[in-house]
Amino acid sequence: MNPSRKSLFQSIKERDPAAKSNLQIILFYPGVHAVFWYRIAHFFYKIKLKFIAYFIMYWVRSILNIEIHPAAKIGKRLFIDHGTGVVIGETAEIGDDVLIYHGVTLGGTGKHQGKRHPTVKDNVVIGAGAKVLGPITIGENSKIGANAVVLTDVPPNSTAVGVPAVIKENGKPVSK
Amino acid sequence: MNPSRKSLFQSIKERDPAAKSNLQIILFYPGVHAVFWYRIAHFFYKIKLKFIAYFIMYWVRSILNIEIHPAAKIGKRLFIDHGTGVVIGETAEIGDDVLIYHGVTLGGTGKHQGKRHPTVKDNVVIGAGAKVLGPITIGENSKIGANAVVLTDVPPNSTAVGVPAVIKENGKPVSK
Amino acid sequence: MNPSRKSLFQSIKERDPAAKSNLQIILFYPGVHAVFWYRIAHFFYKIKLKFIAYFIMYWVRSILNIEIHPAAKIGKRLFIDHGTGVVIGETAEIGDDVLIYHGVTLGGTGKHQGKRHPTVKDNVVIGAGAKVLGPITIGENSKIGANAVVLTDVPPNSTAVGVPAVIKENGKPVSK
Repeated sequence: MNPSRKSLFQSIKERDPAAKSNLQIILFYPGVHAVFWYRIAHFFYKIKLKFIAYFIMYWVRSILNIEIHPAAKIGKRLFIDHGTGVVIGETAEIGDDVLIYHGVTLGGTGKHQGKRHPTVKDNVVIGAGAKVLGPITIGENSKIGANAVVLTDVPPNSTAVGVPAVIKENGKPVSK
Repeated sequence: MNPSRKSLFQSIKERDPAAKSNLQIILFYPGVHAVFWYRIAHFFYKIKLKFIAYFIMYWVRSILNIEIHPAAKIGKRLFIDHGTGVVIGETAEIGDDVLIYHGVTLGGTGKHQGKRHPTVKDNVVIGAGAKVLGPITIGENSKIGANAVVLTDVPPNSTAVGVPAVIKENGKPVSK
Repeated sequence: MNPSRKSLFQSIKERDPAAKSNLQIILFYPGVHAVFWYRIAHFFYKIKLKFIAYFIMYWVRSILNIEIHPAAKIGKRLFIDHGTGVVIGETAEIGDDVLIYHGVTLGGTGKHQGKRHPTVKDNVVIGAGAKVLGPITIGENSKIGANAVVLTDVPPNSTAVGVPAVIKENGKPVSK
């Protein structure tokens, strides 16, 4: 096993107490499978074999219930936990060591062309059911609460909770 | 291609910047596939072959992750984008040119018998994860925000945002 | 048919006006199928054949879009309605006659080890999209609203609505 795969497994076991062994993660973690197939589809997308890329991700969505556009840019050790209902849009960008729960959307608002999906920086955690919409940036180490709706930039080391989300740094609301 | 199918494709390309070609929509848009199968199931339901209708929609839900009761009434050019987790109940009614994102429920509250699901008028847009519950009416051209919970009528040309949803016309809250 | 199965069907027909016959429930109710398979997987989990248990629930999640950890403890006549996106965590406990809609999570907050998922008492109803997180207790007969995010105990006979949820007994907010 090469070091980067080992560190994916270790990073998952650190983040999910239900993960007991590497074999369990390889066999039974749909979020791990979806990211694996995304990386293959993304390769085909980049070499302009887009229909192969779409075909792969259509079936990944159908079987694993996780939808990742093959053009999205995803960093190292993304862990999608549980995963059902996740939607990651065409122009979304995700940094390293991000943790995304089921039901999360990195989507658009319908108001933008071109770059219209979020940029998520390193070490961000996005809670179950949260909708992060528009060409906004979620700063490093920030946390998005479950079912939050985030429509504005979130600074690093912050939290965003609620519908629409209220953003707090060090426990205090950020003035806008 | 007959004019009404062409207009479905054109309406999708206007509403989804990620849709590049008709072939891509035909092959890889689960929301388009689900509505196609719903129309077949709805035909069987109306001629009282209800078990065939249920059978089709059971497998559509399983493979496409979109659940539409075959008795629901749906107008022209409904576009379900992404679609995972959508639930459309037995007595729901949907007008023309409606856009529904993934995770949307047109469901019941458990307090009504008979007509117990929403009526959604023409040109409505319902954001990802929104729950629209009860025999209420969403007026023409209105927009429902992501993750909103809507339990009351929404007038035409309005927006409904939040949990429970606050309804605004021309940017001002509607008094109740 | 033994009495307990009969009572499951009756309890479903009382709770879902769209359920017209036992045969329809047996054939076309994914939430019923998922709980059936969970009970088999839970048996294998208890006799330490954990990989068989994981294997069953992996495919149940893939086909039925409902994720139940085989170690969870579930009482009698649980009815999962619609079901897409439901996630029930490893240390969750569910009483008798509970009704859970699609998109519900009984999950963790990431802050606890060991028992880190909720305990849900008898007769609780949890609305579509609600996220119930942490080793908290939802008391008997309480109702959780659609898309609510519940992070604290909910007393019996109460309601919890909103993000984060406000808890009310007899229509009045509970002071904390």
